[in-house]
Amino acid sequence: MTARVVCFGEILIRLSSPDNELLLQSPNLRIHYGGAEANVAVSLARFGHDAAMVSFLPDNALGRAAMDELRRYGVDTRFVTTAPGRMGLYFLAPGAVLRPSEIVYDRAHSSFATGPIDTIKWDETLAGAGWLHVSGVTPALGSVPAAAAVRAAQTARKLGVQVSFDGNYRAKLWGAWQGDGPGILRTMLTNASIAFADDRDIALVLGRPFNEADPAARRRAAAKAAFDAFPNLQRITSTIRTQHGVEHHDMSAVLFTRTSEFATASFSLAGIVDRIGAGDAFAAGVLHGLASAQDDETSLNFGLAAACLKHSIPGDFNLASESDVHAFLGGGLDVRR
Amino acid sequence: MTARVVCFGEILIRLSSPDNELLLQSPNLRIHYGGAEANVAVSLARFGHDAAMVSFLPDNALGRAAMDELRRYGVDTRFVTTAPGRMGLYFLAPGAVLRPSEIVYDRAHSSFATGPIDTIKWDETLAGAGWLHVSGVTPALGSVPAAAAVRAAQTARKLGVQVSFDGNYRAKLWGAWQGDGPGILRTMLTNASIAFADDRDIALVLGRPFNEADPAARRRAAAKAAFDAFPNLQRITSTIRTQHGVEHHDMSAVLFTRTSEFATASFSLAGIVDRIGAGDAFAAGVLHGLASAQDDETSLNFGLAAACLKHSIPGDFNLASESDVHAFLGGGLDVRR
Amino acid sequence: MTARVVCFGEILIRLSSPDNELLLQSPNLRIHYGGAEANVAVSLARFGHDAAMVSFLPDNALGRAAMDELRRYGVDTRFVTTAPGRMGLYFLAPGAVLRPSEIVYDRAHSSFATGPIDTIKWDETLAGAGWLHVSGVTPALGSVPAAAAVRAAQTARKLGVQVSFDGNYRAKLWGAWQGDGPGILRTMLTNASIAFADDRDIALVLGRPFNEADPAARRRAAAKAAFDAFPNLQRITSTIRTQHGVEHHDMSAVLFTRTSEFATASFSLAGIVDRIGAGDAFAAGVLHGLASAQDDETSLNFGLAAACLKHSIPGDFNLASESDVHAFLGGGLDVRR
Amino acid sequence: MTARVVCFGEILIRLSSPDNELLLQSPNLRIHYGGAEANVAVSLARFGHDAAMVSFLPDNALGRAAMDELRRYGVDTRFVTTAPGRMGLYFLAPGAVLRPSEIVYDRAHSSFATGPIDTIKWDETLAGAGWLHVSGVTPALGSVPAAAAVRAAQTARKLGVQVSFDGNYRAKLWGAWQGDGPGILRTMLTNASIAFADDRDIALVLGRPFNEADPAARRRAAAKAAFDAFPNLQRITSTIRTQHGVEHHDMSAVLFTRTSEFATASFSLAGIVDRIGAGDAFAAGVLHGLASAQDDETSLNFGLAAACLKHSIPGDFNLASESDVHAFLGGGLDVRR
Amino acid sequence: MTARVVCFGEILIRLSSPDNELLLQSPNLRIHYGGAEANVAVSLARFGHDAAMVSFLPDNALGRAAMDELRRYGVDTRFVTTAPGRMGLYFLAPGAVLRPSEIVYDRAHSSFATGPIDTIKWDETLAGAGWLHVSGVTPALGSVPAAAAVRAAQTARKLGVQVSFDGNYRAKLWGAWQGDGPGILRTMLTNASIAFADDRDIALVLGRPFNEADPAARRRAAAKAAFDAFPNLQRITSTIRTQHGVEHHDMSAVLFTRTSEFATASFSLAGIVDRIGAGDAFAAGVLHGLASAQDDETSLNFGLAAACLKHSIPGDFNLASESDVHAFLGGGLDVRR
Amino acid sequence: MTARVVCFGEILIRLSSPDNELLLQSPNLRIHYGGAEANVAVSLARFGHDAAMVSFLPDNALGRAAMDELRRYGVDTRFVTTAPGRMGLYFLAPGAVLRPSEIVYDRAHSSFATGPIDTIKWDETLAGAGWLHVSGVTPALGSVPAAAAVRAAQTARKLGVQVSFDGNYRAKLWGAWQGDGPGILRTMLTNASIAFADDRDIALVLGRPFNEADPAARRRAAAKAAFDAFPNLQRITSTIRTQHGVEHHDMSAVLFTRTSEFATASFSLAGIVDRIGAGDAFAAGVLHGLASAQDDETSLNFGLAAACLKHSIPGDFNLASESDVHAFLGGGLDVRR
Repeated sequence: MTARVVCFGEILIRLSSPDNELLLQSPNLRIHYGGAEANVAVSLARFGHDAAMVSFLPDNALGRAAMDELRRYGVDTRFVTTAPGRMGLYFLAPGAVLRPSEIVYDRAHSSFATGPIDTIKWDETLAGAGWLHVSGVTPALGSVPAAAAVRAAQTARKLGVQVSFDGNYRAKLWGAWQGDGPGILRTMLTNASIAFADDRDIALVLGRPFNEADPAARRRAAAKAAFDAFPNLQRITSTIRTQHGVEHHDMSAVLFTRTSEFATASFSLAGIVDRIGAGDAFAAGVLHGLASAQDDETSLNFGLAAACLKHSIPGDFNLASESDVHAFLGGGLDVRR
Repeated sequence: MTARVVCFGEILIRLSSPDNELLLQSPNLRIHYGGAEANVAVSLARFGHDAAMVSFLPDNALGRAAMDELRRYGVDTRFVTTAPGRMGLYFLAPGAVLRPSEIVYDRAHSSFATGPIDTIKWDETLAGAGWLHVSGVTPALGSVPAAAAVRAAQTARKLGVQVSFDGNYRAKLWGAWQGDGPGILRTMLTNASIAFADDRDIALVLGRPFNEADPAARRRAAAKAAFDAFPNLQRITSTIRTQHGVEHHDMSAVLFTRTSEFATASFSLAGIVDRIGAGDAFAAGVLHGLASAQDDETSLNFGLAAACLKHSIPGDFNLASESDVHAFLGGGLDVRR
Repeated sequence: MTARVVCFGEILIRLSSPDNELLLQSPNLRIHYGGAEANVAVSLARFGHDAAMVSFLPDNALGRAAMDELRRYGVDTRFVTTAPGRMGLYFLAPGAVLRPSEIVYDRAHSSFATGPIDTIKWDETLAGAGWLHVSGVTPALGSVPAAAAVRAAQTARKLGVQVSFDGNYRAKLWGAWQGDGPGILRTMLTNASIAFADDRDIALVLGRPFNEADPAARRRAAAKAAFDAFPNLQRITSTIRTQHGVEHHDMSAVLFTRTSEFATASFSLAGIVDRIGAGDAFAAGVLHGLASAQDDETSLNFGLAAACLKHSIPGDFNLASESDVHAFLGGGLDVRR
Repeated sequence: MTARVVCFGEILIRLSSPDNELLLQSPNLRIHYGGAEANVAVSLARFGHDAAMVSFLPDNALGRAAMDELRRYGVDTRFVTTAPGRMGLYFLAPGAVLRPSEIVYDRAHSSFATGPIDTIKWDETLAGAGWLHVSGVTPALGSVPAAAAVRAAQTARKLGVQVSFDGNYRAKLWGAWQGDGPGILRTMLTNASIAFADDRDIALVLGRPFNEADPAARRRAAAKAAFDAFPNLQRITSTIRTQHGVEHHDMSAVLFTRTSEFATASFSLAGIVDRIGAGDAFAAGVLHGLASAQDDETSLNFGLAAACLKHSIPGDFNLASESDVHAFLGGGLDVRR
Repeated sequence: MTARVVCFGEILIRLSSPDNELLLQSPNLRIHYGGAEANVAVSLARFGHDAAMVSFLPDNALGRAAMDELRRYGVDTRFVTTAPGRMGLYFLAPGAVLRPSEIVYDRAHSSFATGPIDTIKWDETLAGAGWLHVSGVTPALGSVPAAAAVRAAQTARKLGVQVSFDGNYRAKLWGAWQGDGPGILRTMLTNASIAFADDRDIALVLGRPFNEADPAARRRAAAKAAFDAFPNLQRITSTIRTQHGVEHHDMSAVLFTRTSEFATASFSLAGIVDRIGAGDAFAAGVLHGLASAQDDETSLNFGLAAACLKHSIPGDFNLASESDVHAFLGGGLDVRR
Repeated sequence: MTARVVCFGEILIRLSSPDNELLLQSPNLRIHYGGAEANVAVSLARFGHDAAMVSFLPDNALGRAAMDELRRYGVDTRFVTTAPGRMGLYFLAPGAVLRPSEIVYDRAHSSFATGPIDTIKWDETLAGAGWLHVSGVTPALGSVPAAAAVRAAQTARKLGVQVSFDGNYRAKLWGAWQGDGPGILRTMLTNASIAFADDRDIALVLGRPFNEADPAARRRAAAKAAFDAFPNLQRITSTIRTQHGVEHHDMSAVLFTRTSEFATASFSLAGIVDRIGAGDAFAAGVLHGLASAQDDETSLNFGLAAACLKHSIPGDFNLASESDVHAFLGGGLDVRR
């Protein structure tokens, strides 16, 4: 069983330094494609869903390449259109040892941020969809994208399309246009049925701290507060990450419903290849479970497995297939022949 | 004998597709650094002159890399300072066979175009310089850069610093802010002692056509008109290029003074590696001759040889040394051991 | 105006040595994707047509990558299905100077050649199509593919779908299964409305020589003979290539109808990057013209321009867009900014 | 002291994705050469032995490159001859983090599997040899290779050439032709003096389980059973591997004789570069010890050290020299200057 | 607050195998630049100091490239001059798992070792400097370099320029010309105010063992002995490294003054990218602290942080900036956006 | 029919800049292997002869890699032994357009130049050989190599082994040790039966000019003079090269016997990939013909074809097989499938 999932957000080109180098240490850059919602769309398409992207790209070689790359992985790009403005870029120096990864964003003035985003016909765009997925990056890009994100969420709710919202709070982006981040995110969550958010995200949105010393209790309290604040919200889920070094993390995940909570085992991820997009891989994995009518715990475990696998795959996209994730859950590290 | 040459303009990072590919055909980009005036500065530094760059760069990994690269080749970067805004970029798909090279500019909102360019203290900046070099790209980037270019040229003239001006008319750039290109270029030429310009450039600046059927006569008429219009101008010079294919050109050059004219032999350039920056290599070569107190013909031949050599060197910079250019002029294609 | 074009044939992965090396001279191979009909499909999709591929691929990482690559460029892959068997491969050492390119085919036992090709439901597959395109490679792969190609052509003709047939005679392939090449090709041509074939192809199919000393007369005689033999055939077209060296060819093209003939100018292609797939680029270009309801001469010129451009693009696919081809026809070799 | 060791098996070309990518994620493949017996031959040649390969390769660029690569490392290739059929290939996506390596075999219809393997003159081929080494892959490739492997082992035993047999059971290969794997392997072991096999291999060959809870006891029981079943067998040895992640294993080894047993210390292998071929490196290391007339414990430790070193070397071949292995056994991780 | 630091030593080009390969396993080498003192100079320049290099390079493309690279990172190269002789090279196979890195030096007959090193005018060269930095490699290169190093240190001391000396004992180099290593190093230390040396270095220089079982006590005893032997010496400092595998070390550092001692926390460095130059990064970090008038503990912690960061950066140079080191000290492994 | 050919000379590692870059413009070097006599040995081995190399290499990773590479291509390396000293290197910036290739030699103090070359037992080394091949580089490397070359030639002549001598005069090398180049070369030619030399080489050796205006007459006169001076000499042959640009040459060849002369057609070589080693490819091609008992004209044509093919192959070695050369002679530029 599969669903149509509409993802709305900016598509970015990533330019990263190769071979653990600093940015421009040598005259080579590797290209990948990303954007929080595009990452979800690609992963869902790889899992067999009808994933559609709603976005704007410049009418030049960069925009066309980004479009081609989404199509390569099976994303429906009919709602990706060209608009004036530039291609959103980001430059990445992947970290190593105890040196964190460093991103230089170069996304201002993009076609998405400056395009005719207010002209999107959401009724048409959402027709036939089971889900709308948006992250907190989209409304953070400016007042027009913020209004569009809200309108998308409201239209979805009106049409009975479930709204999936991923917190992804980026203070720098909101600061650049003095947007009321918490207020707009509250509106998004009012329309959402699932939120990808941890206790810090919820604290920020609700404007109140959660001070429980025990992390599990803190997460539980935050989830309860969110369920109280947002009556349409049915699920709150997040990963939990402990970092021993840039290339060695432990990872687990929790999911709260209004009546239950689920927690996964923890996986030790050593020799991490690429952690960018792991959160989006998790979101896509959980959505895959829910959209496939699997139970919460199964969906959560699938999501975490997808996120873990993402750490072994270069680029922002989780290219693992459904059977790859099932193989991960089945365990076994031997060479597969 | 060497001179201090101050170059004023935007520094760009070039991202080009490798191995004759189209842009982003494969996920690799090669990095080079450029900008019309930076190209001249690097070449002059390689020829042994005290070449200084005046520019603005963002305070991030890209800006620092561009700064490092200029320094690598010996350019004085004390007048390159950081400013808000982004790094100017351009994407290049080098051409092949009969497919022309294609550039996607992504330089809007750069630190140079939006920086505090009006605060440059030109008296200090030009102290000790023999020459100021500016191209038509600098004033084309906006009204503030245009005003700064004019002020730089005027200050130079006032201080007895010779002004070298390279036409480099870019209609798209001027169009973006409705600047009065011809008017501003006339002001630049009023202060210039040497102009890198052909008859089309002069026609554009003077707002009149040159219709002589014979190209040599046309160039001569245009030079005469320019000398009439700009009494400080002492030399007008340009290359002449015939393109048999993207990788096979013939190239020669002419130089007009108020009393004489000089023309070089023509060189057949087959298997061209990289033609970007050849005009700047020519300018640097001619300036090298003049700054070294060589006669006009010697300077012109050196300039053309430098431009020809540039076609064999990847990137925007002409990395040939003075002895490399002399070796070229000496002829000989055998392996040098 | 665009059309749906159904292309039927084997998809191949090309593994080529980089940097002018011989095969496996160094431990690197570059990957491209091809196959005569897939090349046509990709080019038509780039030109804006609804191009669909009918093929079989193995259910492994190689097959999936080939599928993804077709989708990347916009080809409709719904009729590409998985089947037992291996991925068809070919290894290429691109030639240089006077050393010709060398191909080592490794396509035997492929999913296409051994798959359930006889179960294709041609009525459904061709529904809505304006054209069916097949090359002589498809029937040459074995008796089952040959039967399928014939059935496809017959069904198309029955449904009013125009059949485009590209000769592409490969003696080695026919020899491997003792297939009656000329006989089967005659059946294909009986159903075709356009044939991509020169006088040697026609001589082979008709089993008779054309001995006119003048090449134009020889081509004319062959076309006439073909029109006589195949009453449904409306157009015969081919490129004409003179090779001065591996990287320097001259290229032109001719097109015969039952009542007229057209010949293009000749282009000098120096510094050739990749000639593989140029014939398919030509076919796609001509089909684009015809499918866009342009006249024969315009279609022929478009086809030749597409073929010329292909020589500048690495890989089997002609990735040029319609506007790229028009720019080529408009001339001009200067850097496009 | 060195020996002549004749290795009999298929040579493969490995095509692997670079930089932790999935297969064909980017358009590059890295080439290595392998095959269980070829790996042993190369390693023995690097240790100074007269290692000869007996195999078939296609008469094309791929076959010649494989031949050259064996010769590069000093293997005697006089008994590698060309035969119809294709080059055996395998595609590898090296694993990372918790994603296992994945191999796509493409070895069917190879020159080795389909060649005139029954015409090998084993008396001549084995003349002067001290050892014959074969793995379980060779007989698994088909009935003709199986018969040849048996004949090779029988001839060797007749000539007093010691037979080294490496279990390497591959169910998929045996399944493809319904071969009686256990039966044929029993015949091989009947002629062998050393077996590289653990308790699972022995259980499979003898058709009975070993259920001791303690792994050491289980291995001991299996070895005893094998010694009982195969009276010519003098040594049974295997590595023991614990996998904490794809790039972090612990490794040790045991060796049983009819009268004693030896066990090594365990090494922690973190940051594994390439584990393919480690078993063959172990076999070559143990054979080196035995062929050099060293005692069992020394041979076992040498074998394990060789296997550990292999994990740090890209490709299937263990390129470590004898002095590299001794340096490993001597300890020390500092930079060697 | 910054200082002028003059560094005196040989500049080397490093040629290393890529991708964990053995040297020349594949036909590619990666280029980096190094030399113990050049590494310190680059790092100090990155930290904002006026770092000058005193050295000799050949007048060819290799020497010029090395000069350019130092300038790229802001080193003052006015005292780097050309001399007959060759470029000092070293070839590196970076280690992996339990295989140590291996260096093949090819530095004999270099311009530095054979150049007119005795003609350096140290009074001029050291004018304005706060520090002179030399390592034990410089005097080890021959009697003439040794005399020059001594003269440099003596002149510095005479001029009130503090001398920083890094032990770096290389028995092979001293052995090549039968130099009296300990004697010459004692002369260097007589003039030094800071020594980068551990108890083994001190034991070697003083010709006496330190046998305390407790490492801390041993280091303390050695420091005391050195302070007794060298009355001008004010600080002795070194890193402490425990190696779990080639890519996993723990690292801490200690610093002794005549009255106090300081020890840092230990950092776990997993997934090490490049350990070459870490000692020089430490020296530059400590010198940065001292030259910036920071206290001993702060300087020591900065030095260790710099050394740790170096393990994440390819090449010999520590390219981290002062703010990068502060960020490291501030902790945090999350992606920096 | 094949022969044993013993080649005596230094083996070099070439380090060249990729992608038309200047040396060290980017931090990558490509590795190839060469040396005038090694090039001949590899080519002869590829043609099926028993080619043996006599040389010295250092006992380190570089020397072993060079040894492996010769063996890879089938050269008998039993007479290549290790000796103190370093690996001979040369750095190459391949030329482009009108910029010639530039070589920086770094071969002084090599194992060959400084090794125990006077201890070679030439009687044993030449046993069974049909030919000894030496170039003028070998005696130019120093007095000991010169003496060895002379002794090798004299021994060969004594044993009835034909001596092939390739002029290859390198003034810089002779100058470095004030060797009497012409005198020693005369001794070599006294023992040679074939000389690869043109009129300039002969003029230099004989110490007299050839002033005929017509090049053919000049070559003829020089050949006659050489035959007069060296009574054992039976053949003099050379290529004739006209350079239109760095990547476009015309090439032909002439061969003189005491009674006849032969001249080939001229080939136009455009898009040259690598011209290094073309002279050695020619020598190997001619020797192949003679060693295969073919007539002079056939041998000459084979040699020229081999030299032409070499221009299309990266590296110093001509890797073309005998059938590749025959294919070249058969003509045809189409893709070979």
